[in-house]
Amino acid sequence: MSSSVSRKRIRKDPATRRAEIVGTAAAIALAEGLECVTLRRIAEELEVRPGLISHYFPAADDLVAEAFGSAATGELDALVPAGRPGETPTLRLARFLARTTGDAYDTMSRLWINARHLSRYRPELRERVVGQEAAWRGRLGALVQEGVDAGEFRPADVSVAVVQILVVLDGLGAHANTGTAEHPAAVSGMAAATAENALGLPAGTLAAPAEGAVPAVRNAPDEGSAPASARTTAAAAAPAAATVASGPGSGSGHGPRSASGAAPAARTEPSEPPEPSESSAP
Amino acid sequence: MSSSVSRKRIRKDPATRRAEIVGTAAAIALAEGLECVTLRRIAEELEVRPGLISHYFPAADDLVAEAFGSAATGELDALVPAGRPGETPTLRLARFLARTTGDAYDTMSRLWINARHLSRYRPELRERVVGQEAAWRGRLGALVQEGVDAGEFRPADVSVAVVQILVVLDGLGAHANTGTAEHPAAVSGMAAATAENALGLPAGTLAAPAEGAVPAVRNAPDEGSAPASARTTAAAAAPAAATVASGPGSGSGHGPRSASGAAPAARTEPSEPPEPSESSAP
Repeated sequence: MSSSVSRKRIRKDPATRRAEIVGTAAAIALAEGLECVTLRRIAEELEVRPGLISHYFPAADDLVAEAFGSAATGELDALVPAGRPGETPTLRLARFLARTTGDAYDTMSRLWINARHLSRYRPELRERVVGQEAAWRGRLGALVQEGVDAGEFRPADVSVAVVQILVVLDGLGAHANTGTAEHPAAVSGMAAATAENALGLPAGTLAAPAEGAVPAVRNAPDEGSAPASARTTAAAAAPAAATVASGPGSGSGHGPRSASGAAPAARTEPSEPPEPSESSAP
Repeated sequence: MSSSVSRKRIRKDPATRRAEIVGTAAAIALAEGLECVTLRRIAEELEVRPGLISHYFPAADDLVAEAFGSAATGELDALVPAGRPGETPTLRLARFLARTTGDAYDTMSRLWINARHLSRYRPELRERVVGQEAAWRGRLGALVQEGVDAGEFRPADVSVAVVQILVVLDGLGAHANTGTAEHPAAVSGMAAATAENALGLPAGTLAAPAEGAVPAVRNAPDEGSAPASARTTAAAAAPAAATVASGPGSGSGHGPRSASGAAPAARTEPSEPPEPSESSAP
């Protein structure tokens, strides 16, 4: 990195710099593991002094926790985004479940395993993992409650239904580093089957919606004026970007500590320290 | 450890020494994590030279894999031991599920999380994890097949039923380092409910058997001459020790690589190297 120290640096505002640090740490956590998130490594990636990183994160463990929180919040926002007009809770739940597969999902599952293991030793990370789990329960709980309010879902208990779905997803994701075979449909479809059972839905209701297709919806809510094509369009929409700010569950439901890692710009940050002397070099 | 080098050493036969090394490594893995299983650490625990450990395990990663395999095999043998005369598959399955809770189980769940994470980086460990998962499928698969043969279980597919049960157990165990609250019965009982559903059993059939009690058994197999008291006695028996050599699933079922780590004495070992010179010191 010696070639970089003579580059003219731009002094960034604290929120931008912090977001850059966290984003870089999250990317390294996803690609290589949380063990690789060190002040030195992040400084190398960003071509800054390690002291700049420790200015924002005096304790490296806080950066590790933030890296996980940022990645996990991005996943939650991408998998369970805010609903759009005309989208039923049934459709949104089916689409979420359909997204719990593939390379990006497996990469995130590896990070969850990583974080759950290191939580044994790192209290800051454990606190963040517990918070993200609560955010998941809150987000999914709000979606299920919407379905209850719309007359689509009939769970015996909303929070139990949510935890049952998440337990199955955790069990399927536990094999992200060691899975060697494709699961049969009766296994890969366990989360959908669990959700259907917990929510009082006929089997198959939550089967993966085809691109542009709408799954069968029982007891569709009153959408009187919304034409069928509107829902079809909504179903075909591309997955929301990971940068969606917050979903319907944020701040409600079952005690979520929703996504504090997702909004670095909203935090009060110390001013960025003066750039090192070489920043004024030609 | 300097006080130990002058002790007179007993030269142990290779199988005994190897078992001692693996047992020590497994204990450290359970108590502190697989990251702590190093040649140096095991040597310190056993008060021998590191060279003695590396004589048996030239590659430390092999010892890490063996530590996990030994602990995991002990767990499998303790949780799903060989059946005893008069014990129905339904009783054995209910008793297994009742054992998937408590401190010892949580400790082992932490080791599974640990191993599944490190499998990302360590091929020897990954191979062992995959093997232990296969051993679990084989052992449970044999138990379920016995239930099918006895007319107690009616799964659509034996191997699918087994994987569904294991996925739920993995999902519940994923929180061993981060769980902060007691689950409601509808969550803690998910594995039993999943098994009942997959095996065509009425709800509640696999509820935890009380000490000395026998759970309700539907379609009990022909045990003609076996009096009810024999099954009651069997149900009250203490859990089998972790040293039970092999269960009914070993070597059968769905391709298990059963428990190679459990039988160190059966392996061909190199001769133990000469003791260091201080062993002959007064």
